[in-house]
Amino acid sequence: MKQSTRNADPKYQQIAAKVEDLISAGTFRAGDRLPSVRSLSRDWSVSVTTAIGAYSLLEDKGVVEARDRSGYFVRPKVIAADRLPRRTRAEGAKGAPVSISSADITEDVMDSTCAPGVVPFGAAVPCDDILPTSKLMTLYHSVIRSEGATSFQYAMPPGREDLRIEIAKRLIECGIAVSPEEIIVTSGAMDAILLAIKSFCEPGDVVAVESPTYFGILSLVKELGLKAIEVPVLADDGVCVDALEEAFKSHPVKACILQPNFHNPMGSVIPTDSKRRIVELAEKHRVTIIEDDLYGDLFFGAKRPPALKAFDPGEVVIHCGSYSKALAPGLRVGWILPDSRYHRVKNLKYATSIANATVSEMVVAAFLKTGGVDRHLRKIRKILAQQTLQIREAILREFPEGTRISNPKGGFVLWCEMPDGFDSEKFSVAALNRKISIVPGTLFSATCGLRNLFRISCGSPLDERSQRAIGILARLAQAQLDGK
Amino acid sequence: MKQSTRNADPKYQQIAAKVEDLISAGTFRAGDRLPSVRSLSRDWSVSVTTAIGAYSLLEDKGVVEARDRSGYFVRPKVIAADRLPRRTRAEGAKGAPVSISSADITEDVMDSTCAPGVVPFGAAVPCDDILPTSKLMTLYHSVIRSEGATSFQYAMPPGREDLRIEIAKRLIECGIAVSPEEIIVTSGAMDAILLAIKSFCEPGDVVAVESPTYFGILSLVKELGLKAIEVPVLADDGVCVDALEEAFKSHPVKACILQPNFHNPMGSVIPTDSKRRIVELAEKHRVTIIEDDLYGDLFFGAKRPPALKAFDPGEVVIHCGSYSKALAPGLRVGWILPDSRYHRVKNLKYATSIANATVSEMVVAAFLKTGGVDRHLRKIRKILAQQTLQIREAILREFPEGTRISNPKGGFVLWCEMPDGFDSEKFSVAALNRKISIVPGTLFSATCGLRNLFRISCGSPLDERSQRAIGILARLAQAQLDGK
Repeated sequence: MKQSTRNADPKYQQIAAKVEDLISAGTFRAGDRLPSVRSLSRDWSVSVTTAIGAYSLLEDKGVVEARDRSGYFVRPKVIAADRLPRRTRAEGAKGAPVSISSADITEDVMDSTCAPGVVPFGAAVPCDDILPTSKLMTLYHSVIRSEGATSFQYAMPPGREDLRIEIAKRLIECGIAVSPEEIIVTSGAMDAILLAIKSFCEPGDVVAVESPTYFGILSLVKELGLKAIEVPVLADDGVCVDALEEAFKSHPVKACILQPNFHNPMGSVIPTDSKRRIVELAEKHRVTIIEDDLYGDLFFGAKRPPALKAFDPGEVVIHCGSYSKALAPGLRVGWILPDSRYHRVKNLKYATSIANATVSEMVVAAFLKTGGVDRHLRKIRKILAQQTLQIREAILREFPEGTRISNPKGGFVLWCEMPDGFDSEKFSVAALNRKISIVPGTLFSATCGLRNLFRISCGSPLDERSQRAIGILARLAQAQLDGK
Repeated sequence: MKQSTRNADPKYQQIAAKVEDLISAGTFRAGDRLPSVRSLSRDWSVSVTTAIGAYSLLEDKGVVEARDRSGYFVRPKVIAADRLPRRTRAEGAKGAPVSISSADITEDVMDSTCAPGVVPFGAAVPCDDILPTSKLMTLYHSVIRSEGATSFQYAMPPGREDLRIEIAKRLIECGIAVSPEEIIVTSGAMDAILLAIKSFCEPGDVVAVESPTYFGILSLVKELGLKAIEVPVLADDGVCVDALEEAFKSHPVKACILQPNFHNPMGSVIPTDSKRRIVELAEKHRVTIIEDDLYGDLFFGAKRPPALKAFDPGEVVIHCGSYSKALAPGLRVGWILPDSRYHRVKNLKYATSIANATVSEMVVAAFLKTGGVDRHLRKIRKILAQQTLQIREAILREFPEGTRISNPKGGFVLWCEMPDGFDSEKFSVAALNRKISIVPGTLFSATCGLRNLFRISCGSPLDERSQRAIGILARLAQAQLDGK
């Protein structure tokens, strides 16, 4: 350890202890930025060397972490592996492909989330404060003024060229090099995934889906009449590659829908080596991967993880994305890279919805062009990381023993596991009666499994009301475990 | 005839002849407003009585028509019945249901229409001058300013309540009484029709479609894997009711997609009695009608024709509409009335695209609420009627003998029929080489029939360039007929 020699310095230890007390007292919480070395030195009348020494001690203990040029931050409590959600017991290769059996409860979940006065742990929506509202206001005004009537005409597929140019530029960061001519603009990521599936799948075809996975993907697979093979997602490394290979070997899998980065609901990232291997496996078994990289820009760490598409030798991965989480949900601007299925997808876009809202495309293009997006993303990444860590710690603190919880590396959702036998649908009804929305695990399963899990959205900050809500949820969970 | 006694007055006749000369000379063209009685009296130094008398004479002759409080207008030349397009020889009840065989040429048609410098007789899009641009600019600015961050959050299905209230109010004019709770907002009419079909049809099901019909409907039917029975559309009265009944009797028709008002491409309106009968037939044969009333507000006559839904005793008609033609295509705001399939459609909306662009919904709601829409519609109806009539007359004047053309009662497209053997696909390629877009008839047929017909959009005015384009088209058509 680089700081070992300093351990002896009692001045360092004294200041470190004071900082630790503040953390224990809750003055600074997981993800919070601590006072700078300079201000600590000034306010506590110690030398800069002592302040640095104290923080280094705390870093060694795993209490704080240094971030490049940003100073020191309270490190979230390390979760022991036995407190992470377990690998789901999805049948995977062993079971036969199934029809999606989830009930139509998406509507209830969505309705409850949008209901006024409900604590918003339900839908994965960033709160108002996180949206770049004043910037968007300015852009709406200026783009319409500069383009006039064009703003209200069709922006026919593939979508506006200025927007496609900017999307192509941003895709470089994901490891993807494409020309604007290879991009088709969609109405968000779900529209992109729908177009991707319909471009080469027929009803009855088999698709591999993750377990758990975002319920919208399951609804779509169901509506398009496809059969699903579930493949488990691991809390750390995303989809289980061995299980995926087994599924590819055992079944006539035509497509595979994966969220490689900051998986919803798991928060996991597929490691780079595994990404490479997954693409190789898909190529070998002639499976087309539909990549949903919706959350990729919302990393908590130092940089954006690459997309699966970055490892595509060609024609294996259809990459889909959206600005719904990174900029604003109401814009409805996403994209798809359909490779050789370009004309098929373009015609499908005409057939299903003709075009996207023109002004939305103009505004996103202008936002990307003016460069404000990176500043905005830097800001909201910090906020989302902090909200997620703080809500996670509150759950760990308040919930009954035996509760397991994910350790997301980005995005803003948590995946919580209760002991076997727990009924998260009952739990969510009880929660909604107390004006708290959550999403039960069954929605994330093709077979209505995962009943003992649920998802918590961290799109809003941990304030007094949501702090109280976590206490209520913890008591409701305990009561159910106690058989009350 | 009410004016018969005036026929003798030579002063009236003299003035009438002068007006008629101006019309013959092209100073005033079909649909144009003529000088008011007052200005005629002043400018030509005749009494007001004489001016009225002259116009009355011309009215009797069928040369001009009086419109309530708007004065006198040049009446389009009456088209003899033998110059209207003939009933299509769709197999209808006799043939077996077919899979849609149209090629994916929608893309070429759409691309060519949007290409700069092309005379826009292709896509049915109103030109920039017809859009309420300055009003929309103001509204975008004001609604975002008043709603702030809400403008950029999801407007979850069923869509914003303020918009649904305004849509419900406007539906009264179509003869429909619904509460805002029965409406789901969609991303235009195609999204609505997609949701309608998917809410109760499975791949392989049989739907009755009109022949001709809008090619987007055929693409959708194809993409959803449905089989089609074609039912002919008559130039005056829309879908042939007897043929429809035959189809209902002979085949297990599950759904029937109809454009009752200002049919695209025919421009026809189903008479009220026939509407009533169609709904009765559908109920009797347990067929669900999907009504596409996209053009209903764009009538040339005195009032809006009722929707099929107006005659629905309940659960027979799913009504779909949009503001894409009446306000602006780029807004992407439409609606659906799914009746008892409400929850099914709402869940489908989540599964396919989650939500519409929020600001678009806000802007349309505000536009409808402030009452500017009726004034706007009054203005554009006149313009579109005039453009359509003038382009029609130019085609009748320039095109080879044997050309038949529709007599639209609203909307802004013309349906042109050439003698048998004419190849409109070849014709459209030749036209595009001369930078003129049209849509070949084969696109409007489930079976790639209707090869000797084509559609002309009248979304832009008949100016010098388009006048010249009609001359070129006429020569290209003649050349093909001459076998050159």
